[in-house]
Amino acid sequence: MRPEPMPPPLFPDPSGLPALVTERISEVLGARDGAFARQGPDAALLWQATSESLQGGKLLRPILLLQMVEALHTGPEAAESERAALRSAALDCAAAVEMLHAAFLLHDDVIDHDTTRRGRTNLIGVLAEAAGSDAAAAAPDGHEDRDPGAALHWARSAAILAGDLLIAQAHGMIARIDLSRQVRLDLLAHLEDAIEETAIGEHLDVGLGAGVLAPTTQTIARMTRLKTAAYTLELPLRLAAALTAASPEAQAVLRGAGGRLGFAFQLQDDALSLFGDVQEHGKDPDSDLRGGKQTALIAHARSTSAWELIAPRFGAADLTPAEGEELRGLLQASGALDRVQELIADEIAAVRALLASGPEGLPPAAVQVLLDLISRLDGRTR
Amino acid sequence: MRPEPMPPPLFPDPSGLPALVTERISEVLGARDGAFARQGPDAALLWQATSESLQGGKLLRPILLLQMVEALHTGPEAAESERAALRSAALDCAAAVEMLHAAFLLHDDVIDHDTTRRGRTNLIGVLAEAAGSDAAAAAPDGHEDRDPGAALHWARSAAILAGDLLIAQAHGMIARIDLSRQVRLDLLAHLEDAIEETAIGEHLDVGLGAGVLAPTTQTIARMTRLKTAAYTLELPLRLAAALTAASPEAQAVLRGAGGRLGFAFQLQDDALSLFGDVQEHGKDPDSDLRGGKQTALIAHARSTSAWELIAPRFGAADLTPAEGEELRGLLQASGALDRVQELIADEIAAVRALLASGPEGLPPAAVQVLLDLISRLDGRTR
Repeated sequence: MRPEPMPPPLFPDPSGLPALVTERISEVLGARDGAFARQGPDAALLWQATSESLQGGKLLRPILLLQMVEALHTGPEAAESERAALRSAALDCAAAVEMLHAAFLLHDDVIDHDTTRRGRTNLIGVLAEAAGSDAAAAAPDGHEDRDPGAALHWARSAAILAGDLLIAQAHGMIARIDLSRQVRLDLLAHLEDAIEETAIGEHLDVGLGAGVLAPTTQTIARMTRLKTAAYTLELPLRLAAALTAASPEAQAVLRGAGGRLGFAFQLQDDALSLFGDVQEHGKDPDSDLRGGKQTALIAHARSTSAWELIAPRFGAADLTPAEGEELRGLLQASGALDRVQELIADEIAAVRALLASGPEGLPPAAVQVLLDLISRLDGRTR
Repeated sequence: MRPEPMPPPLFPDPSGLPALVTERISEVLGARDGAFARQGPDAALLWQATSESLQGGKLLRPILLLQMVEALHTGPEAAESERAALRSAALDCAAAVEMLHAAFLLHDDVIDHDTTRRGRTNLIGVLAEAAGSDAAAAAPDGHEDRDPGAALHWARSAAILAGDLLIAQAHGMIARIDLSRQVRLDLLAHLEDAIEETAIGEHLDVGLGAGVLAPTTQTIARMTRLKTAAYTLELPLRLAAALTAASPEAQAVLRGAGGRLGFAFQLQDDALSLFGDVQEHGKDPDSDLRGGKQTALIAHARSTSAWELIAPRFGAADLTPAEGEELRGLLQASGALDRVQELIADEIAAVRALLASGPEGLPPAAVQVLLDLISRLDGRTR
């Protein structure tokens, strides 16, 4: 219990935050329904599929952003109109980070040739299926033989375009925030840094997977930080700091903590993709092994004697489930999984130590949001 | 010669406009060099290739935008600081439309599996070549067999990301223009409309090519308008009108003229891809035939008796140059080329008639910019 007078909460019902985010996303996407529908049924279907790709997420990023805005906003003397403007801007940013996330997942699915996501058929799978049944009806005459992969090609292209549309939506929302010129410029800079870093991380990821880049521990760590840490935890925290015009000291702490926890988050993700409960994460547990995905876990395994048993089947497109199980056993026996768990624990411990030191400029409520985040990361199963 | 007192020109040397645009693009992209270099040599190479994809363009879009801003800006009484702000904002918009164009070309090349553009190896070709020679060196051990297409996959993925980066750059530049809140909101709306319409047009284009959509004359015309007209001529004209706070009447005329001329431009492009001088346009003249690209020209040919001779080889991936020549002869003999030339002439005539009617709110200098544009479109060979 803090003795200081608290400003009234921006969002009096914390349990209602996910509904507020979902509602704002629906509003923003729904506002474009008419524009797409006017361009014909195919355009309407593209937008519908794009909008549906926003569903089913855990909303980790937008909720963290809203919680941090709540923790950082100060001034019980602020007029209700100012508070309303901040509330609305925060919801726009929250919706934007979720859209950006969905866009990156779409482009990632194109790049990785995936047709499922979150345990469901993704936009690519949905459109490819719809197209497969339409293609026969659309054939204008019997002469033009179509490549059987044409429907999938169309669906993948649609996913590229859907990602473009969502990135543009996210950018457009943040560009329209008018709290002050400086806040807008800060928000834009944070968003664009995150887009840049995520693109570089994805570029390294594909280069590692394709064998174009040498899978050194260092390159893999860099890829892991850039591809996910940048936009997953760092971006929401940076946006929250910019929205509330937090002090440079507070901004630096949030950025540092976001980077470290985001790195831990991605290390967990990689471990969960292989060793997690399939029912919980909804992904194919052998996908990363079959794709030869270079993760910190694999980098550690490569440095052990177990690697000569793993290497012959790692990255094999025809890996069987039994072989997948065997590789998982070897990875675990190599100590690579333990090493990654240690790395995760180290990052979390470093952030705990930073927070325990009473970092300058960060109010106790903001420290608490980060501690709550750490609790959720610790022992995460999906 | 107009008798009214003219405001002093914003850009006193019209022949220097291309150099100003090129310089602004280099400045903006160059400002990110350091950020990419800090992420390592692979990130630096990605950004270098992205920046190089901006080279060699005709700069049609940015120059049109600057010419129209020059024609529409009024007020000899404006302070030099206001004129400098408008000049700078116009150059930012000009650079942004060229970046958007480059981004769309990159995503288009990914979708069409092209590795050349403007007669040169494109970003995909450059990176695939670099990766092919690096891949052997990067292989960490002899165990991991890589798909031979891995380098190309990496390069295509890079082109998706490079396009994302350029769209974000364009959006970011326009979001930072601070002439007034209303001008910024108008610019953003025009940009986002163009991104949306282009994405829908590309989606229809791929659907037509993949046989997912029936190639009706109507769908093909809709695709042609959306995919190119929206951002090629309409967007620069709309941005110029917004920058100069042109009257709603002038905005409507510019939008209408831009749409019609943009449609004519794309019809020309399709005809030139097949029948133009290869030395001038630098593209493979059989690419559209091999890819089964559905254009207005093909739609007209399909409605003639010549189609039964064309259809068996149209869209054949193994089309020989001799067969390409034969198909071109058949398309010409069918009257489809003449019909498309008529369509182009009709669109241009409609805009000429509109301009001759003395459209409300459009100053003579702006009418002259459109007439000059028409002269360049008439008889265009590349």
